Amino acid sequence: MPAMNLLNVAIAGATGYSGEELIRLLIRHPGIDLACVTSRGNAGQRLEEVFPKFQGHKYSELKFSPSDPGQIIASGAQIAFLALPHGAAAPFAQALIEAGVRVIDLSADFRIKDPVVYREFYGQDHPAPALLRESVYGIPELYRAQLRTAHLVASAGCYPTSVILPLHPLLKAGLIDPASIVVTSLSGVSGAGRSVSAEFLYVECNENARPYGVPKHRHLAEIEQELSVAAGSPVVINFTPHLIPVTRGILTTIYAMPRPGVMPAALTEAMEAAYAEEIFIRLRGEKGTVELKNVTHSNFLDIAWRHDPRTGRVILMSAEDNLVKGAAGQAVQNMNVMCAWAESTAL
Amino acid sequence: MPAMNLLNVAIAGATGYSGEELIRLLIRHPGIDLACVTSRGNAGQRLEEVFPKFQGHKYSELKFSPSDPGQIIASGAQIAFLALPHGAAAPFAQALIEAGVRVIDLSADFRIKDPVVYREFYGQDHPAPALLRESVYGIPELYRAQLRTAHLVASAGCYPTSVILPLHPLLKAGLIDPASIVVTSLSGVSGAGRSVSAEFLYVECNENARPYGVPKHRHLAEIEQELSVAAGSPVVINFTPHLIPVTRGILTTIYAMPRPGVMPAALTEAMEAAYAEEIFIRLRGEKGTVELKNVTHSNFLDIAWRHDPRTGRVILMSAEDNLVKGAAGQAVQNMNVMCAWAESTAL
Amino acid sequence: MPAMNLLNVAIAGATGYSGEELIRLLIRHPGIDLACVTSRGNAGQRLEEVFPKFQGHKYSELKFSPSDPGQIIASGAQIAFLALPHGAAAPFAQALIEAGVRVIDLSADFRIKDPVVYREFYGQDHPAPALLRESVYGIPELYRAQLRTAHLVASAGCYPTSVILPLHPLLKAGLIDPASIVVTSLSGVSGAGRSVSAEFLYVECNENARPYGVPKHRHLAEIEQELSVAAGSPVVINFTPHLIPVTRGILTTIYAMPRPGVMPAALTEAMEAAYAEEIFIRLRGEKGTVELKNVTHSNFLDIAWRHDPRTGRVILMSAEDNLVKGAAGQAVQNMNVMCAWAESTAL
Amino acid sequence: MPAMNLLNVAIAGATGYSGEELIRLLIRHPGIDLACVTSRGNAGQRLEEVFPKFQGHKYSELKFSPSDPGQIIASGAQIAFLALPHGAAAPFAQALIEAGVRVIDLSADFRIKDPVVYREFYGQDHPAPALLRESVYGIPELYRAQLRTAHLVASAGCYPTSVILPLHPLLKAGLIDPASIVVTSLSGVSGAGRSVSAEFLYVECNENARPYGVPKHRHLAEIEQELSVAAGSPVVINFTPHLIPVTRGILTTIYAMPRPGVMPAALTEAMEAAYAEEIFIRLRGEKGTVELKNVTHSNFLDIAWRHDPRTGRVILMSAEDNLVKGAAGQAVQNMNVMCAWAESTAL
Repeated sequence: MPAMNLLNVAIAGATGYSGEELIRLLIRHPGIDLACVTSRGNAGQRLEEVFPKFQGHKYSELKFSPSDPGQIIASGAQIAFLALPHGAAAPFAQALIEAGVRVIDLSADFRIKDPVVYREFYGQDHPAPALLRESVYGIPELYRAQLRTAHLVASAGCYPTSVILPLHPLLKAGLIDPASIVVTSLSGVSGAGRSVSAEFLYVECNENARPYGVPKHRHLAEIEQELSVAAGSPVVINFTPHLIPVTRGILTTIYAMPRPGVMPAALTEAMEAAYAEEIFIRLRGEKGTVELKNVTHSNFLDIAWRHDPRTGRVILMSAEDNLVKGAAGQAVQNMNVMCAWAESTAL
Repeated sequence: MPAMNLLNVAIAGATGYSGEELIRLLIRHPGIDLACVTSRGNAGQRLEEVFPKFQGHKYSELKFSPSDPGQIIASGAQIAFLALPHGAAAPFAQALIEAGVRVIDLSADFRIKDPVVYREFYGQDHPAPALLRESVYGIPELYRAQLRTAHLVASAGCYPTSVILPLHPLLKAGLIDPASIVVTSLSGVSGAGRSVSAEFLYVECNENARPYGVPKHRHLAEIEQELSVAAGSPVVINFTPHLIPVTRGILTTIYAMPRPGVMPAALTEAMEAAYAEEIFIRLRGEKGTVELKNVTHSNFLDIAWRHDPRTGRVILMSAEDNLVKGAAGQAVQNMNVMCAWAESTAL
Repeated sequence: MPAMNLLNVAIAGATGYSGEELIRLLIRHPGIDLACVTSRGNAGQRLEEVFPKFQGHKYSELKFSPSDPGQIIASGAQIAFLALPHGAAAPFAQALIEAGVRVIDLSADFRIKDPVVYREFYGQDHPAPALLRESVYGIPELYRAQLRTAHLVASAGCYPTSVILPLHPLLKAGLIDPASIVVTSLSGVSGAGRSVSAEFLYVECNENARPYGVPKHRHLAEIEQELSVAAGSPVVINFTPHLIPVTRGILTTIYAMPRPGVMPAALTEAMEAAYAEEIFIRLRGEKGTVELKNVTHSNFLDIAWRHDPRTGRVILMSAEDNLVKGAAGQAVQNMNVMCAWAESTAL
Repeated sequence: MPAMNLLNVAIAGATGYSGEELIRLLIRHPGIDLACVTSRGNAGQRLEEVFPKFQGHKYSELKFSPSDPGQIIASGAQIAFLALPHGAAAPFAQALIEAGVRVIDLSADFRIKDPVVYREFYGQDHPAPALLRESVYGIPELYRAQLRTAHLVASAGCYPTSVILPLHPLLKAGLIDPASIVVTSLSGVSGAGRSVSAEFLYVECNENARPYGVPKHRHLAEIEQELSVAAGSPVVINFTPHLIPVTRGILTTIYAMPRPGVMPAALTEAMEAAYAEEIFIRLRGEKGTVELKNVTHSNFLDIAWRHDPRTGRVILMSAEDNLVKGAAGQAVQNMNVMCAWAESTAL
């Protein structure tokens, strides 16, 4: 039974890496009571049994419920985080929203506004196209106003967050040529989730690195959607993700050509105008650096940039923790906006 | 005293990572006798004292000589590998060549043909401009004929090898627009050499990744020089190196726009025409993958590519071991060509 | 200028790994104001310049002062943490205590009560033997009462904490033979501090592991001192530290022979009697496990144990984060006890 | 069709880590022809398809056969390596030996001489007790004479090799008290094989370490069997394996009490008498060190030792590559002895 005034919160799929990170963050959130955590494989077990690291923490005795929206509704949850595999979240969201539960979905199920694009990238029709229209894309720095009243938030993906935020101000101000954008990202292995697949074994990932999903990774759909919104016209880019041997972190390097006549100073001005007041975006400037160690275990996204006078291109570099700003942290930040709490609460 | 018919070989700077790797390879080379290894810090010590891993191997009792060209000449060396810091190799090379020793230099000292470009990237006048003209750039796949009689070989750098070889056939055949080239590379930490600097401590590199040298890394000088030779006109590119937490390996991802009218099949044909017969270049094709674990501890460079119909760009991906094909292995391959031995000897 | 009622706190040597971790913890401590951080190499620089990860945090604009006790006194600090190299802390402590500043020393300078033992293990006379007597050994679980009024706390070492806490209840209850104790510990590389030494380079530590300091590591002095206090008679043990390729964490495995007639259940009872109420010691029991990932970035020490009926020995296993419970976290826990704050504040 | 005089060799279970390493070694063995590789999951595929790293190597076109002894017999194999899971090797061995194929088994199926002990540790009756009697335990340094004519070799396990070899000379000479032996081992993750289990995912192993199998790991059976042979009386020990985040390598630290009156020099003499002439055992002495980086990718076992005058104990430390001296390398060494080839061939 939660204390008065605390918001009841549930996590569906709480044993994946994003779910585990949500628990870690919500333990220290003063505004909520964790009322329900669900799991397909660990229903009936206590949190500390599944995650010994949570022994001695608040909620350590909480038992996992079966993975079912009814369990979440019965728990009295007012907000539910869905940390489910892509495709599994949509039916949960439908049932929960019908029951009046606000939903923050960490999967890709509600990020693509256009059902045709969804079909192109995911190979099937969208299971709940009516909900697509009302979902809000969950990057607070871009959709803060809409998030305040949202019932369904499609919390942004890890790669997309690291790509969209650096490019958004430059596209919106018309400073760069959308056709010139090329993106390389490096991701830690936790980005693959806790899927038990040979390619993510320690021995296969350690002392290794590789590109994958070339040339058409699924995350392109939401990246290009949001870049197109920023540019006001369709944007198509190259994006190559790479797997590197770290547990956490995404490092993104972006190349783009400024439009004719754009001075380098204009790029810096646009970045500062957009993000100077944002608490979770740290502008490292045209001389600063980004590296994973500065952002892991935090909700920060760091951005640095350079103008290359030799080729004329601008190089944008960003770093974030894929499990925090790229997943659970951003989801909590979204919740804080939805509930009118200080945006940094528990982050 | 070497056995008859064996070539006397020396390594200057044999305690760095490239020097150590040279020793590992030369131990199993049947055509040579390692006559001299030099070291500034470990002169007088036996090989096995400095490198316990070489205990029980041939040459384990060999003592390091002081770092001095005279020591190499006195040892009777007929070929000398210079695994010295950039800037330190030039005076060694001059003295050795005057004494009739053939030199394979692993530093950048003789890679830049144009003294003006050398000055631009290295901030000082070249110490031996006369030697620049006779040096041969040490990538056997490109300069095999010239290497056979070379007296001074500027063995190619680790990043340049991984960038030049994939692009060379496409530029030479005029298939891609030189102005469109963007390169991202990931390198293991051994690429920094055994320099004792805080930024290369375990704790600083582990669970971390970062771009560096943006936008004008020194290796651009030799990359652009060789790409320009291939293209027949000046090529200027973007190149961003990244440090990732592996000991060995370079993974490179390249984006370029085909010239108007070029069909994707032409790219594949050009790659196969150039490299089908090369034993150390493995073409992984337009469906294959590259990853570090397939090339580490070997002299292979793997190349895969994709055409992206959405943007029109071609994406080239390569993988090599920075200490082998990117340094010591390529140097031995160069020696094998210079001596008319089977090119794969000891590799 | 600190807000009213906040305690002024200083950190000497704030750029080492323990100092950096202290900053991370103190940022979220509601009872203190960080008034002064000192550094030999970075005096005059802002915290966020030296540690970009602290950009956007409280104190990010704080400038490092020169490494001098006078700076700390002038800052109005009421408590000072000394995160200085061994040997450098003693003169700081003397000056600060004379000025009325309470000192929590993270070095080994005041841990050894017996100047003769100090000389044996550190090879020189103790610089301030008078202070040795009044220093309190900083493990709250063992010396809580004395810490409350202490002026000088010798915060316990990383290895010693992981060895002393599991053995203390068994020795105190006379359940095990002190002469039978054998200890193996594995430590992450941050335990070596931010010392720029070739042996701690990434390439030297990655894919490597090694024992060191065999058979007489310096930490034996404080381990045996505290085990002797627990046993009520001199205890001499074997202790072998090993370096493993992780950034954080100490894993300790201890073997001991129960005294004749001691039943396995008595071991479990003694552990529970000692630690059941301790918030930072998690007993994982005779079936549970310990692993680094459960304790890193936390102040917990996990302990599990087994009785082996085949040899009769008991095996104790512990895990902690060497930078938290093994250094900065324990130091903050000590401060919380000294100031009568909730012991878990900021931890 | 093999060239004349080459021995036909097969590998059953060639897609596990030991099988893959066997292929790597056998590629460069001048005395054999690899006639058959079997796989349950990859039958019909070429070697280079399953392992791109073998592209461009001898045998890269060889196709995996189904996992069946008949396939091996039909290939004309004269020697078969069994790199199969424990329990799966016994029926293969029976069929092959009946067909006249000499068998080198890398599993534990034939290592335990006593069927009662086998049942105790493996929980079932031995499937082929008659073969147990004729199998030879595969450590060449201990059983060289018997290996020469063996038809069935039980190649020693990775942990056992690292524990038995350091202790054998001391027990055989009666220098240490068998009841005093305590062993801690650290193993890389490849020791777990290519089993797709959540506990061996990159994210679970990276930045982690843990003991396991406490107090009765299965490898104790063969360790104690061989130590008992050396001592001439039953030996029971403590042995604690730990998983550490490296791909390859086992590091073992052993504690034992010399018998009364034994001088430290006698320990060194016994080690040198036993191993001075062994090419794959490197004695690092009472001042030397062992570390994984000196032995990985080689067939060496390094041993160092110390006498601790404070406790009287001797500490033995060993390092090996678990996939080479601990598995595939030792198996090839066994084959070389069986075939009267130079013992270091291909190693």
